[in-house]
Amino acid sequence: MSIYFVTGNQNKLSEVQAVMPQIEGWEVDLPEIQDIDPQAIIEAKLDAAGTEYTVMVEDTSLYIDAMNGLPGPLVKWFLKTVGVEGMYQMTECLGSYTATAKTTIGYQATDGTRLFVEADLRGSIVPARGANGFGWDVLFQPDGYERTIAEMEPEEKQEMSMRTEAVEHLQAKIATEDTHS
Amino acid sequence: MSIYFVTGNQNKLSEVQAVMPQIEGWEVDLPEIQDIDPQAIIEAKLDAAGTEYTVMVEDTSLYIDAMNGLPGPLVKWFLKTVGVEGMYQMTECLGSYTATAKTTIGYQATDGTRLFVEADLRGSIVPARGANGFGWDVLFQPDGYERTIAEMEPEEKQEMSMRTEAVEHLQAKIATEDTHS
Repeated sequence: MSIYFVTGNQNKLSEVQAVMPQIEGWEVDLPEIQDIDPQAIIEAKLDAAGTEYTVMVEDTSLYIDAMNGLPGPLVKWFLKTVGVEGMYQMTECLGSYTATAKTTIGYQATDGTRLFVEADLRGSIVPARGANGFGWDVLFQPDGYERTIAEMEPEEKQEMSMRTEAVEHLQAKIATEDTHS
Repeated sequence: MSIYFVTGNQNKLSEVQAVMPQIEGWEVDLPEIQDIDPQAIIEAKLDAAGTEYTVMVEDTSLYIDAMNGLPGPLVKWFLKTVGVEGMYQMTECLGSYTATAKTTIGYQATDGTRLFVEADLRGSIVPARGANGFGWDVLFQPDGYERTIAEMEPEEKQEMSMRTEAVEHLQAKIATEDTHS
């Protein structure tokens, strides 16, 4: 059974397919509501996706502790306006560099059943370094590493990624649901 | 002819009714998409509102120059997370206090015709002062004033408000459209 992953991002698609090869990309533009709660954003997208197919919606957000929940799911607007330099500068000003990268995944079966999983990774905001990855990967250095995500090779990123972990949680949860039904 | 103003905010409703008494409040929850362009957000709400009634959707956002477009229409999430203190601190860190408060109004007639107007006000981000108004009124001191919007009496705010000016623009534009049709 195919799971249609709502994304136009080939990097994200490859990451999740490495765990669950039955995931296929679905490039559909679903409205993204304003919220700082990723589950609320995902719920609205699942509503819009309908139940013709089994679908999956993912949100990966960066939470800077000193910003008390920002940028969260609004990170793309921070990247578009102040950019990675501005994000670093704003964090530096606030005097604390700790942050969490969190992936939330919502899954919806064709009978409307929904599952939510998440996984996170603690780290620090550092001056931009590295050329791999995308978005804010250059800014985020996971705890226990001397490199930002953008300085890691794809295989290493895959191994420590909160996105990979969330997909593993999803895989386990689907298996449990299937056993029970 | 009544114009239904999509808002749950009684303060905003009173401000616009002072200019156009034919405006009535319509407390309906229309999805607010993620964008930093207020017109895009308003367009999506007008799409959702339908054309049974003549409707009006308003966005008033704060643009901090040093943040290059932020917080813009995302200002409510800044208020919910870092609050007015955090917003001041982030601005202070960036070393420039100038900002624009901008109101954008979208109007949709029952034949689907849309009009957009805007008005803005330049000023500075200052440490929070005052008890009137709402949201970030405490933080914003218009150029040429020694007081924040939250330190002004409602009548004075009404006189210099970018929201009032935008409604006046709308009134003029509707009159012009009516003459031409």
